[in-house]
Amino acid sequence: MPDLKQPLDGIRVVDLTRVLSGPFCSMLLGDMGAEVIKVEPPGKGDPVRGQGTLKDGLSWYFASFNRNKKSVTLDLYADEGKALLAELIRDADVLVDNFRPGVLAKMGFDKARLDTLNPRLVTANISGYGSTGPMADLPAFDFIIQAMSGFMSVNGRADQEPMRSGQPITDLVGGLYAAFGIVCALRARDLNGRGQHVESALMNGILSFMAYLASEHLLTGQLPLRTGNNHPLVAPYGLYKASDGEVAVAASNDVVLRKFMRTIGLEDLLDDPRYDDNTKRFPLRDELKEIIDARMQDESQAHWIAALNAAGVPSGKVQDLGEVFADPQVAAQEMVISVDHPGHGDVRMLGFPVKLSETPCEARLPAPELGAHDEEILGPLRARLAQRSG
Amino acid sequence: MPDLKQPLDGIRVVDLTRVLSGPFCSMLLGDMGAEVIKVEPPGKGDPVRGQGTLKDGLSWYFASFNRNKKSVTLDLYADEGKALLAELIRDADVLVDNFRPGVLAKMGFDKARLDTLNPRLVTANISGYGSTGPMADLPAFDFIIQAMSGFMSVNGRADQEPMRSGQPITDLVGGLYAAFGIVCALRARDLNGRGQHVESALMNGILSFMAYLASEHLLTGQLPLRTGNNHPLVAPYGLYKASDGEVAVAASNDVVLRKFMRTIGLEDLLDDPRYDDNTKRFPLRDELKEIIDARMQDESQAHWIAALNAAGVPSGKVQDLGEVFADPQVAAQEMVISVDHPGHGDVRMLGFPVKLSETPCEARLPAPELGAHDEEILGPLRARLAQRSG
Repeated sequence: MPDLKQPLDGIRVVDLTRVLSGPFCSMLLGDMGAEVIKVEPPGKGDPVRGQGTLKDGLSWYFASFNRNKKSVTLDLYADEGKALLAELIRDADVLVDNFRPGVLAKMGFDKARLDTLNPRLVTANISGYGSTGPMADLPAFDFIIQAMSGFMSVNGRADQEPMRSGQPITDLVGGLYAAFGIVCALRARDLNGRGQHVESALMNGILSFMAYLASEHLLTGQLPLRTGNNHPLVAPYGLYKASDGEVAVAASNDVVLRKFMRTIGLEDLLDDPRYDDNTKRFPLRDELKEIIDARMQDESQAHWIAALNAAGVPSGKVQDLGEVFADPQVAAQEMVISVDHPGHGDVRMLGFPVKLSETPCEARLPAPELGAHDEEILGPLRARLAQRSG
Repeated sequence: MPDLKQPLDGIRVVDLTRVLSGPFCSMLLGDMGAEVIKVEPPGKGDPVRGQGTLKDGLSWYFASFNRNKKSVTLDLYADEGKALLAELIRDADVLVDNFRPGVLAKMGFDKARLDTLNPRLVTANISGYGSTGPMADLPAFDFIIQAMSGFMSVNGRADQEPMRSGQPITDLVGGLYAAFGIVCALRARDLNGRGQHVESALMNGILSFMAYLASEHLLTGQLPLRTGNNHPLVAPYGLYKASDGEVAVAASNDVVLRKFMRTIGLEDLLDDPRYDDNTKRFPLRDELKEIIDARMQDESQAHWIAALNAAGVPSGKVQDLGEVFADPQVAAQEMVISVDHPGHGDVRMLGFPVKLSETPCEARLPAPELGAHDEEILGPLRARLAQRSG
């Protein structure tokens, strides 16, 4: 058995993606050990290199989505660039792009050509809407997909407009699904020797997260309501006011609810005939909130969070990013790491969300300078092309 | 080479999870071909069996998260249940739970025992905060993780409270990361013959989606603002008013912005010295919105969406779930499927977000009745135990 450091050791990914969904996908593969070769247009490269705040010329946004990658520059509109891409593809295990569906084929790399170059290749495309259907060719962007997918229709307050998420959530879900699909396709190839095509669409990914909102609608035909921070079905639930800040409480069933009310000294309410059943409590949730707020004012946020969690009631507070990154739990989970970028110093970035005990994710390489690996990667390919034509 | 139908053919998953994050993870594995054995407590089983609207006694919410699974009932607090679980584990490739970290060990299945039973086993745990750190033992729930992770701090309007997402987003992200980690661990095992432990924490997963919000904060120390449906940095951007509804427009850079303004006949504005640069436009975004709204009133929502997309400007509308499920694009992508549940008729549910061209996801099995596979799965194990003790 080989000595394996990471699950994707030995896998080479040719990465034509840019901006967010695709680079996130290829970073996930790189974090798991793949050699990721980021192909960028000469000149400015991935637009994210110029986005966000730069420090010593380096975008930390770019750095945080492009660790564990090598960068080569290719002009894919020129013959030499296409010839070199073909050679890269011959040696690759995975080719991933987030062009609109069909763009890669128009560049000269349709399915037949890719099969000829490398029948073991796993190809992957991340697009807004997928490669079939009336919207396959439309330009897409996270905000538009949040709108089109129904995500916004369930996000926000009942009395206000549908709301987008502050996180570019559809890009990241789409990228993560693509990485999952690619590793599945690699496992299939390990078994049957053949590559295949993987598609992840931002629209499909975020739609698959509709959970009970979707199943309820499909069964009843009713539209889910926006309910802000209230639970759509259960009360009490949500944010309550301690003496020095709010406390988030998720009392999702009767057992946990009784623990909640007992902990704050209001258990009697649950035996009051006005509140002894969720169907009675739910329409009175504002009234209940006033009673609970009044009681919780007696103690601090920290007091209640500790007491509630100790009693088995999930509880916490709304943390801003400053609080999150100062949170000892986040530190214990190593969710901020520091990566040395020669010439730019240490860059702090988010850590690895999946922990594998024996072959863990590692930051082996900092995000590359544009074209940093042209010589290492493209040099031998140029020699190969020269030999073949000579 | 074997004839492979799906990437996880031949993989057997023993699934101790309940409710949402874990069942979503094991469903993703089942959709890719794994045999998933859902272990449930006798009596009521997974609490989701009783949640949401029931039709002919079946929860569509349960059905939509438990397709491609078999159900066995085991009392894991009784000796026979533990003995049968041990036998299940001997034959399994993956064991996944979403208990709090350490609970499985307290049940008698610590790492040493699992290694003895099956050194090739991939184990996985999905928890709120991960297995190390001061919060490892706390109860967790999607809403609380949305609060603690910073997600809520960037979701909502600037002048209002932080807002949770209507989707149970942290559960689903945590489940998807777990599935990704498990398939990576299976590939590692294919190569080196050894199982390992995979951890996915809801907090870490959603935190990893902070993208540029995190990198900007880590570099500048500044907190991201909640900006509702406005872009935090760019104007114009967002929702604009056509004659019969709103149009979502994502003009994320100068090239796309010029196409937008040209399409709506306001290109001259970009040459007006008051608006010719984003740094000038951004503080005037409300004023700009009024000008654009006034112009877009002249035509319908459908007109503008078609014209803008044709011009290369990502555009769409806020769709509710009724519109989403009537959308021809969603139909073309087969994002709603119908699964026959004997005794309950056809159940409509969300389809498969990742498309594999050669070994695609399939609905092979409807969600199981509680204990439907007791005889098939547990019968031979009971016989094995009897033989061993006899």
